[in-house]
Amino acid sequence: MRLHVPIGLRWSDLDAYGHVNNAAMFGLLEEARIHAFWAGDESFDGRPDETVPATRIFSGGPDAGTITLIARQQAEYLAPIPYLRDPLDVEMWVGKLGGASMDVCYEVYSPSGVAPRVLFARAQTTLVVIDAGEQKPRRITDAERAVIEQILDAPLVFRER
Amino acid sequence: MRLHVPIGLRWSDLDAYGHVNNAAMFGLLEEARIHAFWAGDESFDGRPDETVPATRIFSGGPDAGTITLIARQQAEYLAPIPYLRDPLDVEMWVGKLGGASMDVCYEVYSPSGVAPRVLFARAQTTLVVIDAGEQKPRRITDAERAVIEQILDAPLVFRER
Amino acid sequence: MRLHVPIGLRWSDLDAYGHVNNAAMFGLLEEARIHAFWAGDESFDGRPDETVPATRIFSGGPDAGTITLIARQQAEYLAPIPYLRDPLDVEMWVGKLGGASMDVCYEVYSPSGVAPRVLFARAQTTLVVIDAGEQKPRRITDAERAVIEQILDAPLVFRER
Amino acid sequence: MRLHVPIGLRWSDLDAYGHVNNAAMFGLLEEARIHAFWAGDESFDGRPDETVPATRIFSGGPDAGTITLIARQQAEYLAPIPYLRDPLDVEMWVGKLGGASMDVCYEVYSPSGVAPRVLFARAQTTLVVIDAGEQKPRRITDAERAVIEQILDAPLVFRER
Repeated sequence: MRLHVPIGLRWSDLDAYGHVNNAAMFGLLEEARIHAFWAGDESFDGRPDETVPATRIFSGGPDAGTITLIARQQAEYLAPIPYLRDPLDVEMWVGKLGGASMDVCYEVYSPSGVAPRVLFARAQTTLVVIDAGEQKPRRITDAERAVIEQILDAPLVFRER
Repeated sequence: MRLHVPIGLRWSDLDAYGHVNNAAMFGLLEEARIHAFWAGDESFDGRPDETVPATRIFSGGPDAGTITLIARQQAEYLAPIPYLRDPLDVEMWVGKLGGASMDVCYEVYSPSGVAPRVLFARAQTTLVVIDAGEQKPRRITDAERAVIEQILDAPLVFRER
Repeated sequence: MRLHVPIGLRWSDLDAYGHVNNAAMFGLLEEARIHAFWAGDESFDGRPDETVPATRIFSGGPDAGTITLIARQQAEYLAPIPYLRDPLDVEMWVGKLGGASMDVCYEVYSPSGVAPRVLFARAQTTLVVIDAGEQKPRRITDAERAVIEQILDAPLVFRER
Repeated sequence: MRLHVPIGLRWSDLDAYGHVNNAAMFGLLEEARIHAFWAGDESFDGRPDETVPATRIFSGGPDAGTITLIARQQAEYLAPIPYLRDPLDVEMWVGKLGGASMDVCYEVYSPSGVAPRVLFARAQTTLVVIDAGEQKPRRITDAERAVIEQILDAPLVFRER
């Protein structure tokens, strides 16, 4: 199972070439991760979160007990992304689940419902789960693990250079 | 009549103080203007735009015949904006309609449906309508004017300093 | 006396029109304020700050005892800014000095040493000085005031609309 | 031989954790590439470029005959980057030189002259050289190749995951 996360572009994501900037792409992936993995609470959202995806395993907001750090990430750009009003359709899954880390994989597609479907980019982020108090990696719990296993799939294989 | 434009935050809008950065606010207002005033077409959106608000008077995309320039803008910050998952509720209207320009006014509120409602910021942008070919201001047409008059309201009065 | 603060552009400041984006301008002004008003220390800079301008009155870093909030700001755009490798020459001064706030004024010019000199934008920011512990405005001290008075000049008058 | 490119941080590069955001890192690398590889001209810089590094092989500005696209990129984050006033010291070299592409390698260090020196991140970008008119890859010329060979070094080897 893969998640489908809709990620809207902003005009400021474009650079002077008129396409989504290569660095801006990583900001879009960050938004997709927040949407997929971070649960809200009242202080975070202003109201109870009634649409929590099953995968929102980390309790939310900048002051929460868990933070995640990026250990590495990689993107492969297959086609330039023009300005699009409709949100990109970001497919997400976990390609590898470690003790305190996981590899999040993405395929960034044209907006849902538009034909032909275009694959703009593929990417992977290695996330490390950090105990915010101790500022050290902590084990992914069994409960968290059970959730993530639902979106476990084969890791991305990037094209040969 | 005022428009209500939902504008989602991004994690990157926050600065090291944990609040939406003052400069990022102007990017949010830019998104609200695009949502309100720019119509899509197939090359822009990938599909026919079935939800064009009546106020999308400028035909869309970076290559269109009309561009708009900002002559001036101003914002007044009333309360810091924390990270919010739900989109801000941006009220927009036109406070003054000139020959080739208009003053767009905004009140930036907490997400729709959350009580109590908080007014985070008020702002105003003077837009000049430019003929992209001639790179000069052009008159706002009667058709455009008729549309804008539907959202004409009293201009913002900023607080005395 | 006015300060001259060199502020370098980034490629990402440009938007799809090929000019510095209107919202990005406020990020440039923020950099100018940090350069002008915030002193470094070793944890902040990695080494003693040997080039502290006389006006760096606030001791530095995100964890310092003083923070500044923006109460309002305004910019007037006179000419589009192309990509420039050399830093913009930002003239800064204080147009009004209140009990716990000040109006910082800016004129944003083409890079120093290039003729003809072009005035791209004029802007003003009302800064409020906040005690980080109490999260409330605090009085600007006499020592701070004595420094700021050296760069006190007539406030900007924006053009009539 | 490696280039040393000084890249200044901006306050907006920090996120709510108080560190340089993972996505912002790719914007810093972009600035380093522009500094290293793009020559200025009068329309680009406003004045003749007297300090052209030998490696500025692409003639400059958004309207030039050559553009470069990013085919893929990768970063490994070794230590969080706090706010630093002094510019980061970005070491750059080319790890692989192909027919129409090259792998640019980076090591991102703490500011020059500060002890102990800290390696914050390592990264690699695969650049494809594009003929702007034809919008297709073009061969890197012999003259360009001769220059790049001066900064050819062993490619980065990322850590095992």
